[in-house]
Amino acid sequence: MRIARFSIDGNVAFGAVEGDSPDSLVLDIIKGIPFADFELSGTKVPLDKVRLLPPVLPNKVVAIGRNYAEHAKEMGGAVPDVPVTFFKPSTSVIGPGDPIAYPSFTEELHHEAELAVVIGRMCREVPRERARDVILGYTCANDVTARDVQRREDQWARAKGFDSSCPLGPWIETDVEPDDLTIQCTVNGAQRQLGRTSDMVRSVEELIVHITEAMTLLPGDVILTGTPAGVGPLTVGDEVAVSIEGIGTLTNKVIKRG
Amino acid sequence: MRIARFSIDGNVAFGAVEGDSPDSLVLDIIKGIPFADFELSGTKVPLDKVRLLPPVLPNKVVAIGRNYAEHAKEMGGAVPDVPVTFFKPSTSVIGPGDPIAYPSFTEELHHEAELAVVIGRMCREVPRERARDVILGYTCANDVTARDVQRREDQWARAKGFDSSCPLGPWIETDVEPDDLTIQCTVNGAQRQLGRTSDMVRSVEELIVHITEAMTLLPGDVILTGTPAGVGPLTVGDEVAVSIEGIGTLTNKVIKRG
Repeated sequence: MRIARFSIDGNVAFGAVEGDSPDSLVLDIIKGIPFADFELSGTKVPLDKVRLLPPVLPNKVVAIGRNYAEHAKEMGGAVPDVPVTFFKPSTSVIGPGDPIAYPSFTEELHHEAELAVVIGRMCREVPRERARDVILGYTCANDVTARDVQRREDQWARAKGFDSSCPLGPWIETDVEPDDLTIQCTVNGAQRQLGRTSDMVRSVEELIVHITEAMTLLPGDVILTGTPAGVGPLTVGDEVAVSIEGIGTLTNKVIKRG
Repeated sequence: MRIARFSIDGNVAFGAVEGDSPDSLVLDIIKGIPFADFELSGTKVPLDKVRLLPPVLPNKVVAIGRNYAEHAKEMGGAVPDVPVTFFKPSTSVIGPGDPIAYPSFTEELHHEAELAVVIGRMCREVPRERARDVILGYTCANDVTARDVQRREDQWARAKGFDSSCPLGPWIETDVEPDDLTIQCTVNGAQRQLGRTSDMVRSVEELIVHITEAMTLLPGDVILTGTPAGVGPLTVGDEVAVSIEGIGTLTNKVIKRG
């Protein structure tokens, strides 16, 4: 099931996305919330009549750095012995179609296409064989990064935590296997990043074990699993799109921060 | 005013702390919430009849590393050119009297006494002369750190973001000047850290400018302003207390994580 979050006439709702043709998708409005028991209402609205929101409002986003060997190489380093683990705050999250606001404190904004894991239940110290049980589904993410600030600052809270640095969407796919999916990033239609999730150094399950060894994950929390090689600059006016096989495409335009 | 958050008979409320003798403090229950217009109800309960909670439930905690020169030196480094900025998640926050659970993935848990700034209003790109306007008040914090993990892992999400790594309290003091206060940490009554906030490399105002250049702060968000020299180990059974002049004392016991 593809679960979208959207606003219509000022109300926020979840809906199941139905249809195959991108131009004629329909939302079946969900009664309840996707993190508990819910059912489809049967009330349907065309997707192009609503505004899609971030599919989830995470309490925290836990992100992993250098989880694809080719990207670690392009960043001038090796794959680290332990996963590089950092946070992006809830104030950095935007939805599909929302603008990425180019901040004034950077001159080198980069895209990073990533597979995002949406957590479905509260959990801590999850054993590897139970890791799949805590996942609600998957969506696309862009770990937008102020690369110059990242180089200058020892910890990445500003470089990767600024407002609009975490586009998520377009919806949560609950029925896809995450282990071997094509992931790509285009800018203005031209391909910039192309990889497969099978190239991830640590699997989704290993990352859940690693993170929950230290901290509780809450329903709606999101894990970003790292980016493949090919990261590069964004400029004002660019349209950046992250596509993951079996999930969908997350598109955002870069604007000047007002 | 000292604003505490507490639970009584299963309800959560804010209250103004009245009285001078630690043994006879009284809470005047607040009608409304401290981040908007509120008034005192006149209904009073003895503080020792309630359970104090974290004085605020932050959406995010933004913390600053190496903001006291003597501590930077003991960590084997200099004061950085730009403030070291990292996040602690909401799941790390505990209140006064709550246990610090010693996690199994570290063998070197350290205390770090810090002045915490509680944000009172939504803000971004705050100019220095307006920085004081966005502050609701101040409380004590312990930036509990898994020092061995911090040494091994490039980014500090696990080392400083594990459950119960962010004790806050005992209450928010709205009427104190933050610039020159004694800050100390004791373990089982013995002094471990002693400093003055006047030794901070960057002032509270400078940190607010630095952080909000990148990201929006929300009402209830918290800034940790760095720790003075003297950080050291905690072991199971220890009672650690952070005291700041004009604010109060935050006490927590270290237990084995269950």
